[in-house]
Amino acid sequence: MRTALVIGTGLIGTSAALALAGRGVTVHLADHDPDRARTAVALGAGSDAPPPGRVDLALVAVPPAHTAPVLAGAMRAQVARGYADVAGVKRGIRHELADPGLDLRSYIGTHPMAGKESSGPLAASADLFEGRPWVLTPMPDTDTEVLNLGLELVALCRAVPVVMDAAEHDRAVALVSHTPQLVSSMVAARLEAADETAVRLCGQGIRDVTRIAASDPRMWTEILSANAGPVAEVLAGVAADLEETVESLRALQSADEAKQRDGAAGIEDVLRRGNLGRGRMPGKHGEAPASYETVAVLISDRPGELARILADTGRAGINIEDVRIDHATGRQAGLVQLMVAPAAAPALSELLRERGWSLHH
Amino acid sequence: MRTALVIGTGLIGTSAALALAGRGVTVHLADHDPDRARTAVALGAGSDAPPPGRVDLALVAVPPAHTAPVLAGAMRAQVARGYADVAGVKRGIRHELADPGLDLRSYIGTHPMAGKESSGPLAASADLFEGRPWVLTPMPDTDTEVLNLGLELVALCRAVPVVMDAAEHDRAVALVSHTPQLVSSMVAARLEAADETAVRLCGQGIRDVTRIAASDPRMWTEILSANAGPVAEVLAGVAADLEETVESLRALQSADEAKQRDGAAGIEDVLRRGNLGRGRMPGKHGEAPASYETVAVLISDRPGELARILADTGRAGINIEDVRIDHATGRQAGLVQLMVAPAAAPALSELLRERGWSLHH
Repeated sequence: MRTALVIGTGLIGTSAALALAGRGVTVHLADHDPDRARTAVALGAGSDAPPPGRVDLALVAVPPAHTAPVLAGAMRAQVARGYADVAGVKRGIRHELADPGLDLRSYIGTHPMAGKESSGPLAASADLFEGRPWVLTPMPDTDTEVLNLGLELVALCRAVPVVMDAAEHDRAVALVSHTPQLVSSMVAARLEAADETAVRLCGQGIRDVTRIAASDPRMWTEILSANAGPVAEVLAGVAADLEETVESLRALQSADEAKQRDGAAGIEDVLRRGNLGRGRMPGKHGEAPASYETVAVLISDRPGELARILADTGRAGINIEDVRIDHATGRQAGLVQLMVAPAAAPALSELLRERGWSLHH
Repeated sequence: MRTALVIGTGLIGTSAALALAGRGVTVHLADHDPDRARTAVALGAGSDAPPPGRVDLALVAVPPAHTAPVLAGAMRAQVARGYADVAGVKRGIRHELADPGLDLRSYIGTHPMAGKESSGPLAASADLFEGRPWVLTPMPDTDTEVLNLGLELVALCRAVPVVMDAAEHDRAVALVSHTPQLVSSMVAARLEAADETAVRLCGQGIRDVTRIAASDPRMWTEILSANAGPVAEVLAGVAADLEETVESLRALQSADEAKQRDGAAGIEDVLRRGNLGRGRMPGKHGEAPASYETVAVLISDRPGELARILADTGRAGINIEDVRIDHATGRQAGLVQLMVAPAAAPALSELLRERGWSLHH
C-alpha cells in the first residue's frame, strides 16, 4: 500500500492515518468538516488535498449511520482500488450497499477493537490499535487483493487481524461488548432510587460491575440499535438465567426442604457457570488466562508512594502484571494490590517487607 | 473496652483480634479448631486461654450458619457484658436468637464491609477494616452500653461505623453486593459456550463486569441463601428492566418507524438511568464521586517501566488516583492509564512527554 484516502478524521480515522503516514504511506484526508481535516493534517496524519488519482485504499471512518452512503459515494467515484470501513456492526453495512451499481468485490468490512473515552482528531494516536484485535469480514466475492489491502492496513496499524463472517462478528460483539454494557447499566440503574445509606456500602465489586454504566447513552443507543437482533438474543439468554435464579431464590424461602435444596442447587449452578465463562477469557498478550497472585500493601496518600513501591520491585527485576488501588473510604490511605506471577509473589512480599512496607499478608 | 473474647479465628475474627490486641485490649481467642486458635495466638492476636471471668465483649466470627447457635451458647454461659456477631446477613440471626431464655438487650448485630480472596487466620491483618464501613444493627431494646461496645470495637478496628436497621442492611447488601455478584456470573456464563473467536474479542468492559464472576460458588450460595428474599426482590427489578430492554430491541427490528423510535427511547432510558445510578456511587475517601482525567502512556513489558513513570510523577508532586494497566493482546507492551485530578492532567502529560514517554493524547 502506497497511497490511502481516509474519509472521516475522528479518533479512529486520524489514528489510522497517523499510523499509515508514520510508516511511509501517502495519506489523503477528507472530512465533511474541513476544520477537523485540518486538525488531522496539523497532527501529521497526511494532506487534505484531494488525491491526484486513484489511491490504493479508501478507509471510511465516519459515524455508523453515514458509513454505507459515504462508502457508496466513494465507490461510485472510483477513488480507490479497495474500500474498507470501521463500523462496529457489520451486517447492516453490507445490506445497505446491496445496489447493482456497486462492485462489492472491492469492499472489505473491518472493525478495529480499540477506542477511548475521548473522541475527535485531537484524541488520536498512531498506536491506538497496537496489539488490539482488528476484525476483517471478507465475503466470498471479496477480491483477494482487497483482503490483502485490509490485512496490510491492520499490520501497518500494528493490530492483530481476526477474520470473521460479518454475522458471526455481530453476534460476537453482542456477547462480549453490547450485552455487558446493557447489563452494567441495569445494575447501576438499581442505585438510582436507593437509600443514601445503601449507596455508602458500595464496594469494589459493584464498582467494577458498573464502571461502563458511565458510558454515553446516545452513542450506545446508536450502537445497540444497529445490532438489535443479536443483542436481543444474548440478552434473552441472560433473562432466562435471571428468571430461573429468581425462582431459585423464592424456592430457598419455601418451608419445603426439598425445594430449598433445589433452590440452592440452582444458585450454585449459575455461579459455577459464571466461573467457567470467566475462566475462558484470554489473559495478557492473548495467552491462556494467567492466575496472578496478589500482594497487598497499605500506602499513604502522598504523591510518589506508589512509585516508591514499584521502583523497589523494578530494581529487584519483578514484573508487576496489574495494579489495583483500593482507596479507603474516610481515610487518607489506600490499599494497593500488586498482581504478579505466582512464582514471583514470595520474593515480592519479602522485598517489600524488608523495605518497610506494611503488607496485608 | 478492656477485655474481649473472639470466638472464631478466621480472617475476620483474627483481624479484629489483632486490631484490638494492638490497641491494648486483652484478647482471648477460641475456635472449634484449636490449631487455628494457636495460629492466631502465634500472630499476636491474643491468648487461647479461657478468660478468667466475664469479658467486656464477646465477638462471634464463625461462618453464618453457625453464628446464632454459637452466640446463644456464649450468652447462656454469660461469658461477656455484650455480644456481637459479624455475619453478612442480619435479619435471620436475630430471628434464630428469638428464645425467651436469651436476654437480647446484650446483643448487637454487626457487619464489617471488608474481606479478601484468601481466608483463615494467616490472611488476617490488623488493618483489614481500616476506613471500611462497618454496619451496626442495634434494635430498640439493645442496651446503650452494648451499642457503645460495638462502636468502640469499630473505632478500635479503625473502620467507619454505619448504624442501620437489620432489614434495611439486608436490603442494602442485596442491592450493592449480592445482586451484582449474580448478574456478573450470568454475563460470564454466556461465555461458557461461546466461539473461541468471540472470546478473543473480549475487552476491558466485559473484563470489569465479570471480575467477581470468579468468586467461590459454594461460599456465595450460602450468602445468597441467607438473604434470598431481598436479593429476589432486587433481581426481579433487574429482570423487569431486562424484559423491557429485550422488547425495545425487538421494536428496533420492526418495520414500523414509530415502534423503532419507541425502541430507541427505551434503550436510551435504561442507559441514562445507569448513568444516574453510577453517578451516585461515592468516590475516594467517601466523598462525592470525583471524575478523574486519564493520561494514557504506552510502556514496554520490562520490569520497572511502570515504576519509572510513577517516580517521574511522584517527583513532580502529582498524585495518581488510580492506575489501570491494559495489556496489549499479542504484544510485549501495555497501555497504562493514569487517573489524576482534572487540574493535574495537563502538567502530567507535559511532564511525561518531556521525559520521553509515548503518550496517547
